[in-house]
Amino acid sequence: MTSADGRFRIGLLGHGTVGAAFAELLPRRAERIAAITGLRPGVVGVVTRSRGDFDALLEQSDLIVELIGGIEPARAWVTRAIRAGRHVVTANKQLLSQHGEELWALAREEGVQLRFEAAVAGVVPVIRVLTESLAAAHIERIHGIVNGTTNFILSEMARTHASYEQALTEAQRLGYAEADPTDDVSGRDAAAKMAILARLAFDTPVHLDQVVCEGIERIGPDDLEHARDLGLGLKLIGTAERVDGGLSVRVHPAFLYSRHPLASIDGPFNAVTVESESITEITMSGPGAGGPQTASAVLGDVISAMIPPASTPETSERLPIVSDVVSAFYLHLDVVDEPGVLSQVTGVLGTHGISVKSVVQKGLGHNARLVMVVHPVLESRFFAALEQFADLPAMRTAPRAIRVIEEDFTQ
Amino acid sequence: MTSADGRFRIGLLGHGTVGAAFAELLPRRAERIAAITGLRPGVVGVVTRSRGDFDALLEQSDLIVELIGGIEPARAWVTRAIRAGRHVVTANKQLLSQHGEELWALAREEGVQLRFEAAVAGVVPVIRVLTESLAAAHIERIHGIVNGTTNFILSEMARTHASYEQALTEAQRLGYAEADPTDDVSGRDAAAKMAILARLAFDTPVHLDQVVCEGIERIGPDDLEHARDLGLGLKLIGTAERVDGGLSVRVHPAFLYSRHPLASIDGPFNAVTVESESITEITMSGPGAGGPQTASAVLGDVISAMIPPASTPETSERLPIVSDVVSAFYLHLDVVDEPGVLSQVTGVLGTHGISVKSVVQKGLGHNARLVMVVHPVLESRFFAALEQFADLPAMRTAPRAIRVIEEDFTQ
Repeated sequence: MTSADGRFRIGLLGHGTVGAAFAELLPRRAERIAAITGLRPGVVGVVTRSRGDFDALLEQSDLIVELIGGIEPARAWVTRAIRAGRHVVTANKQLLSQHGEELWALAREEGVQLRFEAAVAGVVPVIRVLTESLAAAHIERIHGIVNGTTNFILSEMARTHASYEQALTEAQRLGYAEADPTDDVSGRDAAAKMAILARLAFDTPVHLDQVVCEGIERIGPDDLEHARDLGLGLKLIGTAERVDGGLSVRVHPAFLYSRHPLASIDGPFNAVTVESESITEITMSGPGAGGPQTASAVLGDVISAMIPPASTPETSERLPIVSDVVSAFYLHLDVVDEPGVLSQVTGVLGTHGISVKSVVQKGLGHNARLVMVVHPVLESRFFAALEQFADLPAMRTAPRAIRVIEEDFTQ
Repeated sequence: MTSADGRFRIGLLGHGTVGAAFAELLPRRAERIAAITGLRPGVVGVVTRSRGDFDALLEQSDLIVELIGGIEPARAWVTRAIRAGRHVVTANKQLLSQHGEELWALAREEGVQLRFEAAVAGVVPVIRVLTESLAAAHIERIHGIVNGTTNFILSEMARTHASYEQALTEAQRLGYAEADPTDDVSGRDAAAKMAILARLAFDTPVHLDQVVCEGIERIGPDDLEHARDLGLGLKLIGTAERVDGGLSVRVHPAFLYSRHPLASIDGPFNAVTVESESITEITMSGPGAGGPQTASAVLGDVISAMIPPASTPETSERLPIVSDVVSAFYLHLDVVDEPGVLSQVTGVLGTHGISVKSVVQKGLGHNARLVMVVHPVLESRFFAALEQFADLPAMRTAPRAIRVIEEDFTQ
């Protein structure tokens, strides 16, 4: 597919923030890339949703860089590029988390590379590390902060005691959140990335719809404040881990003890921790988004595609996807301060086999606030207790619960 | 070179902690590797310094794993393996920091792979990220904690207020330091690793002897204590950075502000931060040593060597190696508390154009202790002032200085 004249021709799909940054970065690094690969790369044409002829561009390209995003026309164009024997580099997490298996299979069949470092955690090279450095590692668990928008919002709430709405407005003002932030704050963007990471780490097909997902919309400043009393920090955490011979993939707000390697990741950064018996753990962090940063990840993939390849191998496992797992929880109850209420609360906990690790009680006039951390318990059991709490007449507001990632994270 | 029978034959040199861990790990992961590569790897023989026939082993191997360490016979055997067309995977930082260029050139000539992820920062995949993900990035600076022994000792001193000697003894008891710890505590082990990282990141030949190096032997518990007052943490930091069109590579104790991504790396861990305009920064951390961890890094390289290759490209730059750079410093002076002394001190600072950022003064009977942080200044200029301080009659003990890595590390 490579031009005989020493040029390597790149067809660019999309010309938004990342596309424009890529088109700007490539010529500045072309000489160095020529020294490494023997070929000088250049963009031969750009096609967007509304402009340009894809077939004509494909015809004259050695490799397609897909930065349009979303399912269509990205899916159709990537498919046609692969069928035409072209390598593809993409940053499209939605496409891969929903149609990855079909595209990876097609790429293996056609003997071309489909690379996607920029789809997860921006410039943090987690895809390469999982597929190459840790190709044969028996991975136990991945924890990730894979959405910079929500990490910025939670950092801002912790730092300035702002409300969720205020922090979101600040994120929008600084360009860290879009006008419609739903995809980020609902956890759905993070869920797509965790589906891709889980697929690679556990060698099992994982679809976006199989990822259990909860966003940060209901987090309040007092959650962060009480948490501080307990020595915890709050993050939107993606988790993929082996559970009883199965695989659990989920995204939800979670408290971390301050010693956890992800606890110090603040602002619009991303970070991923990979745990396995033989490696103990590796943590990687860096900017999760931004045009130049994501373009740099795309460029790393382009160079790798210019040098002989490793394609995503077929999955050889079919771990069952587990949705009910064991977790510690932070529990926040506002109750009427009258005799018998505390015993009702402990009664509900006892019925469900939930034991308390630490508790802070505050009087508030006729009301009392109980903030506690409970020991790990099966989530379904904890949620059953939560429903019972909601039904207690002494409850002043709806009970609130947030998962806690335990201090013994390396065990 | 690959056996026709679907086996991939590995000749193992060395059978110490890492060699034994590799021999144990390989069979457990062989099936997965066969699924990825189509070949089943196995160790066909082991040769150590004192036992076995290297030539016979080479003859029957597709790839040589060199875990003997040191210069000879490692250099001769690696050279002969490459000349015989065998891929080589090594963890030997001494060999590569002193004879890397000749070995990399030979590997390019012979068209074989020479991989060395395990030579730097154990399981932290910094070699792969530098040579692949960031192959064409214009890197500005690398900061690394690349020696787990010294990081454990400094963490222990900070945590328990132990002396250097006590912390070293504890490190030896836990197996984090060797009976003769000279190579680690002098910074020479870290210097070898920084030479390798600098070579890859800045595409310039760097020899171990060109790395400016200072160890941790003279650090005292009060350095750590005063530093805490100033909001700083102490690490043995390796730095490689562009300076005025040249390259500075050095290892020395340095204070970090608490927001620096390396400030939270405690215990026997390693971490590396890579800074560049287009990526902002990436930080990677993980265990820096340990048999199974290092063996896992070796295994990642073996798998990559089984799949078509990227070899270390020839250097295309010849940046001059710079040894005098600008740095902020922490300065500790014990002086006689009498009139005129403070003006002598400020006089010396003024003569050398050194300005003070923050200062803490404590009375100690007839003596006074001045602990300050000075703004960045050319090191030669600062050391000239330090010599002048040592000559002042009012000086009670030798002045002590430690570099400070500034808060604006992302600039």
